[in-house]
Amino acid sequence: MTAVVYRGARRLEIEERPAAAPSAGQVQVAVAYTGICGTDMHIFHGDMDARVGLSAVIGHEMSGRIVAVGDGVAGLSIGRPVTVMPTRTCGRCAACRRGNAHICHKMDFLGIDSPGAMQSSWVVPADLVLPLPDDLALEHAALVEPVAVAVHDVRRAEVKAEDHVVVVGGGPVGLLIALVARDRRARVLVVEPNPWRRSVAERVGLEAVDPETNDVTTMVNERTDGAGADIAFEVSGAAGGVATAVDVLTTRGRLVMVAIHPSPRPVDLHRFFWRELELFGARLYQRDDMTEAIRLVAAGAIPADRLISRIDPVHAVHDAFAALDSGGVMKVLLDLRDGAS
Amino acid sequence: MTAVVYRGARRLEIEERPAAAPSAGQVQVAVAYTGICGTDMHIFHGDMDARVGLSAVIGHEMSGRIVAVGDGVAGLSIGRPVTVMPTRTCGRCAACRRGNAHICHKMDFLGIDSPGAMQSSWVVPADLVLPLPDDLALEHAALVEPVAVAVHDVRRAEVKAEDHVVVVGGGPVGLLIALVARDRRARVLVVEPNPWRRSVAERVGLEAVDPETNDVTTMVNERTDGAGADIAFEVSGAAGGVATAVDVLTTRGRLVMVAIHPSPRPVDLHRFFWRELELFGARLYQRDDMTEAIRLVAAGAIPADRLISRIDPVHAVHDAFAALDSGGVMKVLLDLRDGAS
Repeated sequence: MTAVVYRGARRLEIEERPAAAPSAGQVQVAVAYTGICGTDMHIFHGDMDARVGLSAVIGHEMSGRIVAVGDGVAGLSIGRPVTVMPTRTCGRCAACRRGNAHICHKMDFLGIDSPGAMQSSWVVPADLVLPLPDDLALEHAALVEPVAVAVHDVRRAEVKAEDHVVVVGGGPVGLLIALVARDRRARVLVVEPNPWRRSVAERVGLEAVDPETNDVTTMVNERTDGAGADIAFEVSGAAGGVATAVDVLTTRGRLVMVAIHPSPRPVDLHRFFWRELELFGARLYQRDDMTEAIRLVAAGAIPADRLISRIDPVHAVHDAFAALDSGGVMKVLLDLRDGAS
Repeated sequence: MTAVVYRGARRLEIEERPAAAPSAGQVQVAVAYTGICGTDMHIFHGDMDARVGLSAVIGHEMSGRIVAVGDGVAGLSIGRPVTVMPTRTCGRCAACRRGNAHICHKMDFLGIDSPGAMQSSWVVPADLVLPLPDDLALEHAALVEPVAVAVHDVRRAEVKAEDHVVVVGGGPVGLLIALVARDRRARVLVVEPNPWRRSVAERVGLEAVDPETNDVTTMVNERTDGAGADIAFEVSGAAGGVATAVDVLTTRGRLVMVAIHPSPRPVDLHRFFWRELELFGARLYQRDDMTEAIRLVAAGAIPADRLISRIDPVHAVHDAFAALDSGGVMKVLLDLRDGAS
């Protein structure tokens, strides 16, 4: 089988390896498609070497089919299309003890801390495997994991029908959040300075505005009879994005912090006080979020076709990463189907 | 009757005026005691001249007795001890329309926007008057309004029994929050650099630590088996206080922003993301908070005697404000009982 191995900053090697058989409680999956996410890019750039070893198989957004099951695995049959929830939790840390295992302090994240999905044969614990509907295209199913992130974020925000929602940042996660919020019948506005990203947003039926030529707060106030937005998602990672997300909110409006801000950002805490605003950090997802993501992708609420910019064969992995580095792409998948022998 | 009139920065004048009679729907209260709060100090320093006129009667923490009622006022009899909820709301703004009238955008705040309680005879709308228990000392009842702030803050935080609570800032509001949280059977730690304020905290049975000689986060982690605090209140108004309040929190811990931060503060948003922390702005109170505050003061849950540092006669109002400026006092009241003729 074929594996993509991280060998240091900007060095990915293709290796042919014997496929491992599943042990008790494990499942062997023939990976069909693996998406490349922002975290994979951070690893590729060498920014996560302290956590990721120099022989790591990365990747955690995937779809595939079961090819073998280990002893004691029930309910998962060979040939079944599946995706994998890539988070193994310790069950003992403070987060797990408090019922927040999804952000376990000692998380084993498949594709970061242990071997991931950029290999055509992947052996994983059976309890992380989620069956997919038979009629769901496997390339679309590779989006389930990032959609689960969006589902989790929208759930943290408690988005309701008719809510005015502002999504600051129109990259893949921002657009998925906007699409999930739209599925909840919210009124969604995407804020994104990059014209190409705005064009993708518009292609999937979202309204997107350029914050460099629009006063977003004024625009939102005009639409809400001066009240402001019910909910904002900060997905840009930029200091200016934080300011916008705070400024647009109505009294007791809710801001969900999705982006990674590597350094502390100035926040208008007086406005939090004055309007009794609320801020919620949101990270990863729970199993229910994965299940709901499968439902949304299968139902067509997520127009996967229009979000997948390209699908590269696994041997062209460098081209795929280069495309993400140069911009002008949204989701990029690797096709691992030919290597599954 | 006697009134304290604001005449510009650091200028308060005592005036003798005829007492006004209540119109329909109003109540005339003989004010007994009026507390001086942080907002009164801001006005006194001239920081709120844009909002407060140069003939304003300030003050909004008070107790007194009804001396007359206007036409159509039911259920409020002469002689009744009362306090006043000093917030009149517009009923039409976005906050009011969304059920958050307590932070009305067009608030008429008695003692800021219209005449307040530093006058021995005060005419107020009957619907803002709350009866007090007959056996509650009126000097203690002057603390009901700031206690209502603390009740509101603790309610925003959803403090439960056994919760680990950190209160950053041990001034009057910080100590009241700590006392209300203690009444909810939470485990409370006050963080305060000023040794005199710590001594007051200890005198009312609270644990208080100096953040300059203690690593508060390590201390909290040791007490919580490494988990961190369930809830933090930022009441210091200092940038360092914000950092402490964020650092001490456990996964999905809740930070309530009580203090006024005049400029944006650096906030570790990555920690909000990573631990799925939550931040809630909290301002003022609702009527239920006032009612609960009366109950708590009357029940002795708030040791008012130990929080009231001094009671000055109204004619010594400058001494009272000077004492607050020089520090070493907690709550300071004005006694207006002699002027009520």
